[in-house]
Amino acid sequence: MSSQEIQNLIRGGVPQAEDLDLRVVSSDAENALTCIPFNSRLVRPGGTLSGPTMMALADAAMYALIFASLGRQEMAVTSNLNIHFLSRPAPVDLYARATWMKRTGRQAVCAVDLFSAGSEQQLVAHATGTYSLAAQTD
Amino acid sequence: MSSQEIQNLIRGGVPQAEDLDLRVVSSDAENALTCIPFNSRLVRPGGTLSGPTMMALADAAMYALIFASLGRQEMAVTSNLNIHFLSRPAPVDLYARATWMKRTGRQAVCAVDLFSAGSEQQLVAHATGTYSLAAQTD
Amino acid sequence: MSSQEIQNLIRGGVPQAEDLDLRVVSSDAENALTCIPFNSRLVRPGGTLSGPTMMALADAAMYALIFASLGRQEMAVTSNLNIHFLSRPAPVDLYARATWMKRTGRQAVCAVDLFSAGSEQQLVAHATGTYSLAAQTD
Amino acid sequence: MSSQEIQNLIRGGVPQAEDLDLRVVSSDAENALTCIPFNSRLVRPGGTLSGPTMMALADAAMYALIFASLGRQEMAVTSNLNIHFLSRPAPVDLYARATWMKRTGRQAVCAVDLFSAGSEQQLVAHATGTYSLAAQTD
Repeated sequence: MSSQEIQNLIRGGVPQAEDLDLRVVSSDAENALTCIPFNSRLVRPGGTLSGPTMMALADAAMYALIFASLGRQEMAVTSNLNIHFLSRPAPVDLYARATWMKRTGRQAVCAVDLFSAGSEQQLVAHATGTYSLAAQTD
Repeated sequence: MSSQEIQNLIRGGVPQAEDLDLRVVSSDAENALTCIPFNSRLVRPGGTLSGPTMMALADAAMYALIFASLGRQEMAVTSNLNIHFLSRPAPVDLYARATWMKRTGRQAVCAVDLFSAGSEQQLVAHATGTYSLAAQTD
Repeated sequence: MSSQEIQNLIRGGVPQAEDLDLRVVSSDAENALTCIPFNSRLVRPGGTLSGPTMMALADAAMYALIFASLGRQEMAVTSNLNIHFLSRPAPVDLYARATWMKRTGRQAVCAVDLFSAGSEQQLVAHATGTYSLAAQTD
Repeated sequence: MSSQEIQNLIRGGVPQAEDLDLRVVSSDAENALTCIPFNSRLVRPGGTLSGPTMMALADAAMYALIFASLGRQEMAVTSNLNIHFLSRPAPVDLYARATWMKRTGRQAVCAVDLFSAGSEQQLVAHATGTYSLAAQTD
């Protein structure tokens, strides 16, 4: 699937991704890069992006990686997510890059690095998460 | 502060909380109960509520508990959040109850139990999180 | 299985549990209580018990709960553990109580509360963890 | 401090590190590499290393990084640790490399990659953790 197709599938199944204007910037079998363009609804006190914005983006990056790597897996569901907030994201576009840590027939464990547009070297958050695949039979 | 005042403060500072129609149902020095009323934008494939909806609600419950317990702390920021998704929430109103695990002058560690309206005994998710207080000097 | 049988099985398969003098104090289908008796090798600077002691005990409590609930499952393996250290344990016997958060045919998600002898109401740590069951086919 | 001095300090303050024959292989301001040499007390059913061995090593790698970077900080204490177990470590020497994710005057957030001797490219576990510095005033 192309990144555009993955973006369409995610937005079609998850209205909040549509509401956040979620972009799948690039994706292949090994990593996926997603973006939420800045808009003024995403802020929190301090003029920084909200934690839930970052968590939604991290989750979407893992979901996109699963699609890019394993094909359509709409029923894959997150079973665990852990996130460290490292620095306050500037009010600009936010990016998340997901990579594999482990993949079995029924589980996907990913790492996700989040950074602001133009500052890829300074992480704003680091997440790890587990997706349950073929979840319907869990 | 009353639960209504806390709700107003959170919604005033975090537009996404307003967009989610976040409610602070009850709160005191020991626990806070928050709710996101069901609406059709909150779903994901499988007819269940999305992970980011649950994470946003868990985060808001901790934030509300901090306000209820410590007063206005808009600059408090999440430094870590861990969440286990335990069962798929029905497409109904979702609740989160935050309680203290630890509180020092600069850190608040909370546990949050999430459940669906009418099913308080069956958790849909369990989160733990750390908020950094007086964060401006961190 | 009795708590004594579970203790014997764990100690037989995990030499470190034997070295820590791990006890399975009580266990049934819903919870398991384990203990590491205090000894002077368990400390760290500050005169408190070390983090690894607490993590080993939390892990053992989950393992004991799986045995008590599901029978012999020596091949069950931890896939994730998250722990918050909440207060410094006094140099006394340390206890951990594991309870279920979720159980499917292939995964067990547990919560574990750790406390010092005589102070069950003050948690020294809270952990959550996922065990993979029937792991040989994962 | 040299890696040897850090190793001596850790072993001197934490008897379990001495019992595990913990080594600080290398360290500088940006990363620390620690090792637990294989011995037959470290196994669990399946002929693999136990989870607590991996958690103890991950914790020690973070502690060593703090010493290497910030000087003597015996009173630094772990406030949170999250670990994903990714593959079963062979019964050989186990290594952990800790790097910084964030550092403030009072908190250190680290990532730790664990791997077996001779297989640095295949992670057996990935951990993230938070250390509280100057903890005596927390």
